[in-house]
Amino acid sequence: MKRPRLTTDDYIEGIRGHDRAILGRAITLVESNNAEHRVQAQELLRFLLPDTGGAHRIGISGVPGAGKSTFIEAFGMFLIGQGHRVAVLAVDPSSTRTKGSILGDKTRMEQLSAMDEAFIRPSPTGGSLGGVGRKTRETIMVCEAAGFDVVLVETVGVGQSETLVADMVDVFLVLVLSGAGDELQGIKRGILELADIVAVNKADGDNINATEVARAEYERAFQLFRPPGHAPWDPRAVVCSALTGLGLDDLWTLIEDHRRMITSNGALDEKRSRQRLRWMWSMVDDAVMEAVRSHPEVSFRLSGLQAEVLTGTTTATAAAEAILRAFGIGR
Amino acid sequence: MKRPRLTTDDYIEGIRGHDRAILGRAITLVESNNAEHRVQAQELLRFLLPDTGGAHRIGISGVPGAGKSTFIEAFGMFLIGQGHRVAVLAVDPSSTRTKGSILGDKTRMEQLSAMDEAFIRPSPTGGSLGGVGRKTRETIMVCEAAGFDVVLVETVGVGQSETLVADMVDVFLVLVLSGAGDELQGIKRGILELADIVAVNKADGDNINATEVARAEYERAFQLFRPPGHAPWDPRAVVCSALTGLGLDDLWTLIEDHRRMITSNGALDEKRSRQRLRWMWSMVDDAVMEAVRSHPEVSFRLSGLQAEVLTGTTTATAAAEAILRAFGIGR
Repeated sequence: MKRPRLTTDDYIEGIRGHDRAILGRAITLVESNNAEHRVQAQELLRFLLPDTGGAHRIGISGVPGAGKSTFIEAFGMFLIGQGHRVAVLAVDPSSTRTKGSILGDKTRMEQLSAMDEAFIRPSPTGGSLGGVGRKTRETIMVCEAAGFDVVLVETVGVGQSETLVADMVDVFLVLVLSGAGDELQGIKRGILELADIVAVNKADGDNINATEVARAEYERAFQLFRPPGHAPWDPRAVVCSALTGLGLDDLWTLIEDHRRMITSNGALDEKRSRQRLRWMWSMVDDAVMEAVRSHPEVSFRLSGLQAEVLTGTTTATAAAEAILRAFGIGR
Repeated sequence: MKRPRLTTDDYIEGIRGHDRAILGRAITLVESNNAEHRVQAQELLRFLLPDTGGAHRIGISGVPGAGKSTFIEAFGMFLIGQGHRVAVLAVDPSSTRTKGSILGDKTRMEQLSAMDEAFIRPSPTGGSLGGVGRKTRETIMVCEAAGFDVVLVETVGVGQSETLVADMVDVFLVLVLSGAGDELQGIKRGILELADIVAVNKADGDNINATEVARAEYERAFQLFRPPGHAPWDPRAVVCSALTGLGLDDLWTLIEDHRRMITSNGALDEKRSRQRLRWMWSMVDDAVMEAVRSHPEVSFRLSGLQAEVLTGTTTATAAAEAILRAFGIGR
């Protein structure tokens, strides 16, 4: 049974009135690929713009088994206890929306999802990474307009999703475990590049010492590869336990220190402006390259050209020029 | 006084005959942005293609003061002593070709540049990073056709030039110094992601112990952030001295081990095929985005749209859609 379509005013009123059902439908509108929906979504966002940007945008990544869901549940409950309203979004380019996965997100955060001050939304199914990125970025704005002052964006850490999330948040948190000595459970090397804060989880029971050792190792690694010149923020490592709640307060204090720092020196505004501009260009880039690939002349020749480049029987330049000519902008 | 234009056959003959003057002119042809030259360059490369791919393609980056030139001179001389023919190319997107900079490259590698078995070429002036990338990649091919079996591609490490070079070589070497304890002279954190081998230079005199300490620190950092699963190669750290030649033989042995490994398991062919395909697409991308930016309708609206996105008065999506409509492929 189809629900009556909402006007943009209905959406605005519902979102400002913290109506969860309408918030959910607004996000569904933002996530829609239907041309008509996208027009209304952009109209809605234009009206909501003045109410956006107010939240702590926090990216959360983690190695498999680091206990991300448990952490987000515990951290979310902690923040609600501090009087915050918390939205939890996920970025999973591989996900295909099903009742199951929605249920999944609710059940893996049972406590949190039952709270009025929390809103949990599974990953959009955007097909392309760029699609997921647009939808999540706009969902952040909608949640901010709905009065959520903390937005946690979880990444499954598949492929480029971490870079994508890092480019839509103010601070990027990486959840890790204490490793068996040498090897810290194969965390991606590039993560050092993205992380503002590393939290070594499961600092409970017999594991407390091991997490402290790991924390020191990460601090050390951060110092080893400190970027030249004055960085606005030197990455830090902390320990915490989603089980006992140990360290969650220190972690939040650290996030607030980071916030104060990048707010006072204007780095936050700069960062968000640059993010928006990069985002705009990446959407243009995605759309144009899609137009190239789907161009009849191009798609007719593409597989042949790619094969020749792969086998090395054609230079990449010659193949690129052939594609550009086929698209109609080549020499 | 203009030199007589060479036919493609002249170029091929000269290159196969190891004629340095013609090799230099062939590279100049490859580096030319002139449409007519580019047609002839592509014809030339098509003929040379079967003779390409035979060299060790080695990327060399280094922190300022790591002694890159001295190292390349010493390493180049060592390789020539081993019976190799060595081409040295540079990637410096900021460079503007002048007699000075050519002279610069020759004088900073005086010994090497005097050798018949060495060929030193300063960075092309490509304007865009993409332009420099195309020219350097094609210059590698020309040098291979001219019988150079080791091609050293030096990056100045400005901006994205390291990523660019890492994507055109078989092995990426990062030259560092032993740091004052904690901070290894601010090497970019992301370098860990790119480096196959880190060489701690200036392992001579009183500095030998310090370089050994630094080497151990890098090995440790590599282990800390070892990627999950079976990587084809675990990055290694070594010490060397461009001054005394210490460690250059071990370094070359390590590079040959790496080569043997990625050749035996097919990783080299795969890597080069992927590099060519990425290169093709990046050239298409650069050209198409340039066409977007220079489109009259777009450039007319662009500054206004960018300002609105920066100040947050327009959503990035709305601005992107406006640009796409202006370019003529939008909804």
